Amino acid sequence: MPNQHKIPQATAKRLPLYYRFLNNLHIQGKDRVSSKELSLAMKVDSATIRRDFSYFGALGKKGYGYNVDYLLGFFRKTLDQDENTPVVLIGVGNLGTAFLNYNFTKNNNTKIEVAFDADPIKVGTEIRNVNVHHIDELEEKIGDIQVAILTVPVSEAQSMADRLVKAGIKGILNFTPARITVPDNVRVHHIDLSVELQSLVYFMKHYPLEIEEK
Amino acid sequence: MPNQHKIPQATAKRLPLYYRFLNNLHIQGKDRVSSKELSLAMKVDSATIRRDFSYFGALGKKGYGYNVDYLLGFFRKTLDQDENTPVVLIGVGNLGTAFLNYNFTKNNNTKIEVAFDADPIKVGTEIRNVNVHHIDELEEKIGDIQVAILTVPVSEAQSMADRLVKAGIKGILNFTPARITVPDNVRVHHIDLSVELQSLVYFMKHYPLEIEEK
Repeated sequence: MPNQHKIPQATAKRLPLYYRFLNNLHIQGKDRVSSKELSLAMKVDSATIRRDFSYFGALGKKGYGYNVDYLLGFFRKTLDQDENTPVVLIGVGNLGTAFLNYNFTKNNNTKIEVAFDADPIKVGTEIRNVNVHHIDELEEKIGDIQVAILTVPVSEAQSMADRLVKAGIKGILNFTPARITVPDNVRVHHIDLSVELQSLVYFMKHYPLEIEEK
Repeated sequence: MPNQHKIPQATAKRLPLYYRFLNNLHIQGKDRVSSKELSLAMKVDSATIRRDFSYFGALGKKGYGYNVDYLLGFFRKTLDQDENTPVVLIGVGNLGTAFLNYNFTKNNNTKIEVAFDADPIKVGTEIRNVNVHHIDELEEKIGDIQVAILTVPVSEAQSMADRLVKAGIKGILNFTPARITVPDNVRVHHIDLSVELQSLVYFMKHYPLEIEEK
C-alpha cells in the first residue's frame, strides 16, 4: 500500500464517497467503470478522479476503465471497512435525533452505540435501539468509544469537548457553531450549518457555472 | 475589488468563517488582529490565512497585523451581507426542524422564509415563525426564493430537486445521501452525514496530528 501520509487531504476527503459508489457498482454486478462514469455519478470532475486514483497506485486502462473489485478491495482496506467504529452521540435534540434515525450502518461501519442528554424526558428512552443516558453518566458508560458527534447547545460545546477528551475521545464531529479547542492528538471536524448555507449563497453568486471542488 | 473568479474555491469556502470571526472581533471593540491570533481562533494555519487575505489585496503590516474594520467592510461587501437571502426548507423532519431552530440570522443574512412537508401533522403548523405548507403548494408559495435546503427522504431527493429547479431554485444545500443531478446553472452543495462521519474516522487514523485543511 502506498504511504497514505502522502495523499493530499482533499483526496482523502473523497475516499468515503468513492467507496460508497464503488460498492453500489459492485452490488449492481458491474466489474469495471470509467472515470467519466464515476464523474457523472459523483459530480467530481474526471481529471480529479484519475489524479486521486493514481495516488493509490490504481491506473485505469484505455477503453476498459478501472476494475471495480480491485478498487473496492483497496478502499475497503484503506478505510478499514472490516473494522467497526463505535460512536457516541452527545445531545439528543432535533439534530441528534436526525443522526439516530440516519442509518449509518447501511453504507459503512460507523455506528452510534450510545447517546447522552441532560433532558429528563429523553433520558431512559431508546431511539432506533440506541439508549439515551443522562450526561452525568458519560464517564461511566462511554467505555472505549473514541468518536463523538457533538450536537449540544453552543454554550455547552467547549466544556463538553473538554469532558469528552478526558473520557478518551480522539475525534469529534462538531455540529455546534462553536470552534472548540482540543489537544493536538484529538481531531475535530466542524460542520456549521449557517456557514454551509452562507457558503452556498456565495458560490451561487460568484461561481454559478463551475462544479464543486469536493 | 479584485476579480473574484481568480479566488481559489478553497479560499472562498473560508470567507463566511472569516467574516464571522472578524465581526466578533469588531463587536468586542478590537481594531486590529494578527494572522496568528486568527489562526488560533479559527483553527486554520496562519500561512493559509495570509495567503487567503492576499487574494483580496489585504496585506498585514509587521507588528500591527490586519485592520479589522477594513477587512470587515471588504468581506461584508464580498459576501453581500447587506443583502438578505431568503431560503426555502424542503422536508420538516428532525433535520429540517433543527434548521428551523438554528438561528441563521444571528451571524448572517440568510433566513428560512417558508417550509414544505407532505406530512398532514406538520402542514399548517408554524415553527419559529416559519409556516409549514403542504408540498403540493410549493410552486404557488415559493415566490422568487432561489435557495433551498433539501432534507427529504433519499427516495424523494432527485424528483424534488427537479421540481425545485423548475420552480426557479438556483442553489440547493443537499442533506440527503443522494447525489442529485441538476442543470449547469444550478449549484448543489452536498453534506452527507454518513460520509462526514466516515471521513472523520479516516482522518483520525491516518492524520492524527495534523490540523484540518478547512
